[in-house]
Amino acid sequence: MSPSPAQDSTLANAIRALSMDAVQQANSGHPGAPMGMADIAEALWTRHLRHNPADPAWFDRDRFVLSNGHGSMLIYALLHLTGYDLPIGELKNFRQLHSRTPGHPEVGITAGVETTTGPLGQGLANAVGMALAEALLAQEFNRDGHKVVDHFTYAFVGDGCLMEGISHEACSLAGTLRLSKLVVFYDDNGISIDGKVENWFRDDTPARFESYGWNVVRNVDGHNVADVDQAIEQAKAWSAQGKGPTLICCRTVIGKGAPTMAGTEKVHGAPLGADEIAATREALNWPHEPFTVPDHVYQRWSARNKGLLWQNEWQGAFDAYAQAYPTEAAELKRRMAGELPADFAEKARAFVQATAEKAETVASRKASQFAIAAFAEILPEMVGGSADLTGSNFTDWKGVAPVRATGDGLQFGRHINYGVREFGMAAIMNGMALHGGYLPFGGTFLTFSDYSRNAVRMAALMKQRVVHVFTHDSIGLGEDGPTHQSVEHATSLRLIPNLHVWRPCDTTETAVAWQLALQRPASLGMAVRQGGPSALLLSRQNLPFVQRDDDGIQAIARGGYVLRDAPNAKAVIIATGSEVALALGAQEQLAARGIAVRVVSMPCTQIFDEQDAQWRDAVLPKGLPRVAVEAGVTTAWYKYVGLEGAVVGLDTYGESAPAGVLFKHFGLTVEHVAAAVEQIL
Amino acid sequence: MSPSPAQDSTLANAIRALSMDAVQQANSGHPGAPMGMADIAEALWTRHLRHNPADPAWFDRDRFVLSNGHGSMLIYALLHLTGYDLPIGELKNFRQLHSRTPGHPEVGITAGVETTTGPLGQGLANAVGMALAEALLAQEFNRDGHKVVDHFTYAFVGDGCLMEGISHEACSLAGTLRLSKLVVFYDDNGISIDGKVENWFRDDTPARFESYGWNVVRNVDGHNVADVDQAIEQAKAWSAQGKGPTLICCRTVIGKGAPTMAGTEKVHGAPLGADEIAATREALNWPHEPFTVPDHVYQRWSARNKGLLWQNEWQGAFDAYAQAYPTEAAELKRRMAGELPADFAEKARAFVQATAEKAETVASRKASQFAIAAFAEILPEMVGGSADLTGSNFTDWKGVAPVRATGDGLQFGRHINYGVREFGMAAIMNGMALHGGYLPFGGTFLTFSDYSRNAVRMAALMKQRVVHVFTHDSIGLGEDGPTHQSVEHATSLRLIPNLHVWRPCDTTETAVAWQLALQRPASLGMAVRQGGPSALLLSRQNLPFVQRDDDGIQAIARGGYVLRDAPNAKAVIIATGSEVALALGAQEQLAARGIAVRVVSMPCTQIFDEQDAQWRDAVLPKGLPRVAVEAGVTTAWYKYVGLEGAVVGLDTYGESAPAGVLFKHFGLTVEHVAAAVEQIL
Repeated sequence: MSPSPAQDSTLANAIRALSMDAVQQANSGHPGAPMGMADIAEALWTRHLRHNPADPAWFDRDRFVLSNGHGSMLIYALLHLTGYDLPIGELKNFRQLHSRTPGHPEVGITAGVETTTGPLGQGLANAVGMALAEALLAQEFNRDGHKVVDHFTYAFVGDGCLMEGISHEACSLAGTLRLSKLVVFYDDNGISIDGKVENWFRDDTPARFESYGWNVVRNVDGHNVADVDQAIEQAKAWSAQGKGPTLICCRTVIGKGAPTMAGTEKVHGAPLGADEIAATREALNWPHEPFTVPDHVYQRWSARNKGLLWQNEWQGAFDAYAQAYPTEAAELKRRMAGELPADFAEKARAFVQATAEKAETVASRKASQFAIAAFAEILPEMVGGSADLTGSNFTDWKGVAPVRATGDGLQFGRHINYGVREFGMAAIMNGMALHGGYLPFGGTFLTFSDYSRNAVRMAALMKQRVVHVFTHDSIGLGEDGPTHQSVEHATSLRLIPNLHVWRPCDTTETAVAWQLALQRPASLGMAVRQGGPSALLLSRQNLPFVQRDDDGIQAIARGGYVLRDAPNAKAVIIATGSEVALALGAQEQLAARGIAVRVVSMPCTQIFDEQDAQWRDAVLPKGLPRVAVEAGVTTAWYKYVGLEGAVVGLDTYGESAPAGVLFKHFGLTVEHVAAAVEQIL
Repeated sequence: MSPSPAQDSTLANAIRALSMDAVQQANSGHPGAPMGMADIAEALWTRHLRHNPADPAWFDRDRFVLSNGHGSMLIYALLHLTGYDLPIGELKNFRQLHSRTPGHPEVGITAGVETTTGPLGQGLANAVGMALAEALLAQEFNRDGHKVVDHFTYAFVGDGCLMEGISHEACSLAGTLRLSKLVVFYDDNGISIDGKVENWFRDDTPARFESYGWNVVRNVDGHNVADVDQAIEQAKAWSAQGKGPTLICCRTVIGKGAPTMAGTEKVHGAPLGADEIAATREALNWPHEPFTVPDHVYQRWSARNKGLLWQNEWQGAFDAYAQAYPTEAAELKRRMAGELPADFAEKARAFVQATAEKAETVASRKASQFAIAAFAEILPEMVGGSADLTGSNFTDWKGVAPVRATGDGLQFGRHINYGVREFGMAAIMNGMALHGGYLPFGGTFLTFSDYSRNAVRMAALMKQRVVHVFTHDSIGLGEDGPTHQSVEHATSLRLIPNLHVWRPCDTTETAVAWQLALQRPASLGMAVRQGGPSALLLSRQNLPFVQRDDDGIQAIARGGYVLRDAPNAKAVIIATGSEVALALGAQEQLAARGIAVRVVSMPCTQIFDEQDAQWRDAVLPKGLPRVAVEAGVTTAWYKYVGLEGAVVGLDTYGESAPAGVLFKHFGLTVEHVAAAVEQIL
C-alpha cells in the first residue's frame, strides 16, 4: 500500500469521523467500510458525480449505489456533507426507530439513496439494471444534438458482493450488453467478517471481470484521491467508446485511520470504542467534537451550487428537446414521473372485456402473453424478458425486438434475454424500476422463484413496480418432475409482505391480474406511492374459460369473489388457478347429489384480505363450512377454512409423469374435492 | 469444429439412439445434451471412470454428476449400457410415473445417480461438495502406503450451469481450496433454450475459471474421444500435483447426429419427431430398432468386469489398512455407512440433561454453539461452516481447525469459511452429505436463507442429512433493519416438505433440536432412509431459560407440547422461540386477572403435525380457544388457532432500531398477548 503523505485528507476524514462517531453513538454499525472507502468517495463525489442535492429526483442525475450497504454511514455522511436534506441530527440518530438513517440504506427513507442495499451483491445488480435503463432510454429518446438521457451509474462493492453468485450473473450480462455507463469501484481491502479473505476468496478479480468483457483499471491506490480520480477519467474515456462497463480495483485498508484496528475484521461491524476513536481523531488530525464539521469543510464538500448548475444546464437542453420533439418530450416526462397514460384504465377495461368475450380456453401462461401483447401496446415502458425460458414463459410478443449489444453500445429492444440468471434478472428488474422510465417484467418457472426470492422480497420492501411471470406453476408441469414442480411456492410467495401474488383461473382473471399489476403505483426515489411488485403464477396446461357477467368481472379485482353461487349453499369451495375447474366440477357433481355449494375463486389472497369485512363476509359467510383446493401445500389455507374445514392439496413433492396422471395420482380430482365437501358436512 | 471421420462412433451413437428414442416415446424430454455429450461421456466412462455397476454403493468409486440434469437420458443410457440395474424397460418408461427414469435424475430412484439435478448450477456445486468431502476424508483417514480414500469427482455442465451465480460461488471456493480431484467438463455448444448464447452470455469461460485458480484445458473437440481422453489425462496429471480442479472445455454440437436440427435450440427440450429420428439413424449408421442395442456394443460398454476388479483391488487395500489401522478402519466403515456411534443416544441424552441442569439464559444461537461443541466431540463427522458470519452464527467451537488450502492440497479441518456464498454453501453441504462420510452444517442469517432456499429444498427432496444454522431469526436482530430481519422466513421454510424447522425457546429445546437433527437418518445413494435436513432458527438476543421436568424434556421431541399448564385453562397460547417468554409472561399476567391459560411451546410444527391425534388433541384440546404468537407473518398459524382464534405476529417488514424498541413498536409484548387472549374469550 503506497502511502500518500502529500494528500490533504480533510474531506475524507470528515466521512471517517462522522462514521465512527455515529456507529459509536448507536453502539451498533459498520465503521470499517466508510473509513476505508472515504478517499474513493471523495474522488467520485467531489470530482465526478453529477447530482443536485436540492433535487434528488432530477431525472438525469448520475446514480450512486452503495452495494456494500452495511457501510451505510458512508452514504449518510456523503449526503449530509454534499447538501442533501439530511441534517446532522439524523446522523446522531443513526439506526434508531424512524430516523432517516436506518442500519442499511433504504430508498424512500433517505433522499439521495437510490436503492435499498444490505443483502450482498444485489446493489451491484440493481446498478446494472439502472445502467441498462439509462442505455435503453438514451436509445429510445435521445436525438441527434439532443442528449437528454446521459448519466452514469456508479456502484461501490466489497469483497462480499463479489463473492455472491449474483455478481457473476449481473456482471456477465452487463459485459455482454456493453453497458458502458456503468462504473464499479471494488473496495479491495482483503478483509471480510471472518477475517482475511485470502483463505476463502482468492479470485483474480480483475481477470474475472475482463473475462466478462469489462474494462478493468487495476492496482488503484484507494487512499490516493488523485489516483482514483485518474481511474475514473480512464473509465469515462472507455465509456465514450461504448465498449462496456468498467471495474476500478482499489486497494484499501478497512477502517483506515484507526491506529490499532485498521486492516482487521475488528472494524467491520462494531463500534471502535472510545479509546480507539480518540486515537483515531489524533491520527487523522481531526480535533473536532463528534458530529461537528468545520464550515470550511462543509463548503468544500457542498454540491449544491454545482448541482444547481448541472440541473439547469440539463433543463435547458430538455427545453430545446421539447421544442424540437414535443411528442417525445411529453412521453419522456410521463415516463420519468412513472405515470400511466391517461387512457390506460379505459383501454385496459376494453381489453378485459374483449378477453371475456373471446372466451378462450388456453393455458394461463398463454393468456398472460395475450395480456402482455395488449398492454405492451398501451405502455411503451413495458420491457419484458425471461431467464432463458422465453418460449415457455411467453414473455415476448409479436414484433418485439430483443435488446442486443452492438459494436459500440446497445440496440434498443423491449425484450431481454437474461440468460439462465433468475436472481440477476430479478435484481436487474429492480434496478430498472428504481431508475425509472421502464416497467420491467420477467419470467422463469415458478419453482425457480426460489433462486430469485430475495430480489422479489427487495422489490416488495422497496415498493417497486415489477412483474414476475412465474409459469409452470404446479405438478401440471408434468414430466420434468419434482425438481421443477412447485408445491410450496405459491404459498411461500404469498407470505412476502407487499407482494401481490396472482394465480388466475382463466383468460379473464389473467387479464385483470395483469391490469392490476401494471396499475400498482411506481415508486421513484422519495416519491414512494405504496406501490409494489406482483407475481403471476401461470399454468403450463390449458384452463377452461369461465363465463362471468359484468359484476363477476369487476369482482376479480377484489382478490376473492363468488364465481358460481348456488341457492341455499351448504358449503363453500375456495380454489385458485387450475383448481378452479375442479371446484366447478365438484359443484356440479354435488348438485347432482342434491348438495348445493358455492364456488369462490381467490386469485389473490392478499388483495382479498385487504377488502372490508363486509366483502369478505359476503364471499365467505360466517358459519358456512369451507373446503379449499390448490395443487400445493395446504398449510396456509386453514386461514380461510378454519379448524373444521378441509384442504385438498399436496404436502409432498411431485413426481415425474404426464400432468393428467399426476393430478389423479395426488388426488387432485373433482371426485376428491366433492368427497371432501361431503366429509365436512 | 474439426470433424473426426476416423473415429468409430458406435459407442457414442448407442447413447444418441437411446436418448432420442426415449424422448420420442415419452413425447417429452431433452435429446440435445445427451446427443451432444455422447462422445465426451464415452471418453470418460469407458476410459477413466472407476466404478462398479454391480455395487453402486462402493465407497471409493469415482463420483459422476450430470449438472445439466435435463440431459437425464445421457446418464440413464450410460447406466444402462455399462451394466447398472437399469433394464431397457425402464428406458422405455422414461418420464412415466414411478419409473426409475424420471425427467431429471433423482438420487435414490436410480442406482448410479449420485445427486438429483435439474435446477441449474447446483449439480456443479454438489460436485464441489463431493470433492471436498473426498479431500477431507483422504486427509483424515489415509495413511502412508494406505490410500483408502482416493477417487475423482467428475461433473458435466452446460452453458446454463455456468450462467447461474452458484457456479461462481462454488467454483471460486473450489479454486481457493485447491480441490484437485474435481474435473468438470464444459459442454460448450453455444446454445441455450432461447437460442445462440452469444447474445446473452459472452464470458471467456476459460479465463474466468483461470481467475479462480483452476487448471483449464481449452479447445477440446468434444466429438473426438481421443481428444477428450487426452484432456482427462492432463487433468489427472495436474491433479497429482495437488494444484486445484480442472475445467475441460469441450466444443460440441447440441443434438449431434440429427441432420437438420443439430446445432440449434430445437433439439434442446423436445422430441426430434419421427422423420428427424429416421434421418438421424441413417446419418449415424445406426440401423437398429428403437431401444435395441447390439450385443457387441453392450459388451464394449460394459464396466462390470472392470468394476469388479477395481472394487476388489480397493477391498484388498482396505483390508490391509484395517489390519494396520483397525480403529481408523472401523471408524471409516461407520462413517461410510452413515451410522451414528452406538452410544450416541446415550451421550446426547446426557448432554440434554446437563443443559437442563445448567439452566442458562443465553441467546439460542449461543445455546446452539454449546450443542455443536458437545455433539462435535461425539460425532467426528460433523463439519461446520458459515457464509462469512462465523462469529455471529456461532458455528465454530473451541479448538476446531479451519479447512485451508495448502501448497499442494487441503489442510484438514472441521470448520469451513464458505465466504459470502449462502447458496453455494448449502449446495456444497448437499454434495458432502451425498458423498458420505460427513455430516455438514452451516450458518447464515435467517433472512439469507432466501439466497440458499432452493438448495435447502433440494436437501429435503433428496432426504439429505444437513443442518442449517439460521441465526438472527426475527426483528430481534435489531438495528440492521428490514433487509436483515426475518418476517416471513420461519413460515416459509416450514412449507418445504421434509425440512424440519426448529425454533427453540431456550437452551434445552436447542439441545434437543440439535439432537434430533443429527439423528435424522443419512441417505446414501439407493439407501434412502427417510432422513432429511433440519433448519434451526436461532435468536440473536438472550432467551430466558425455562424449567421443565423430565416429561417436559421428553416432550420437546414431539415438536409441540404443553410447556406450562394451568388447571381449568380457558385458552391456549401457542408460541415458538423468543416469543415463548411473551406467552409465559401473558400467562402470569392473565392468572393475576383470574384467567387460567395453558402455554404450548411448538418448536417444530412439522414434527408436531406428525404426532398421532391423541398427542395433538391432548396438547391442543378441541374447543379450547387459542392464540398463537410468533414474531413473523401470521398466515400459517391459523392452521392451529382456527377462524375463531387470534395470532399475534408481524405482517409487515421490520424497522431499524434496537430490538427492545422494535418488539414494543410492533406490539410483540406480554400485554398485547394477554389482551389477545382476553379478546377471544
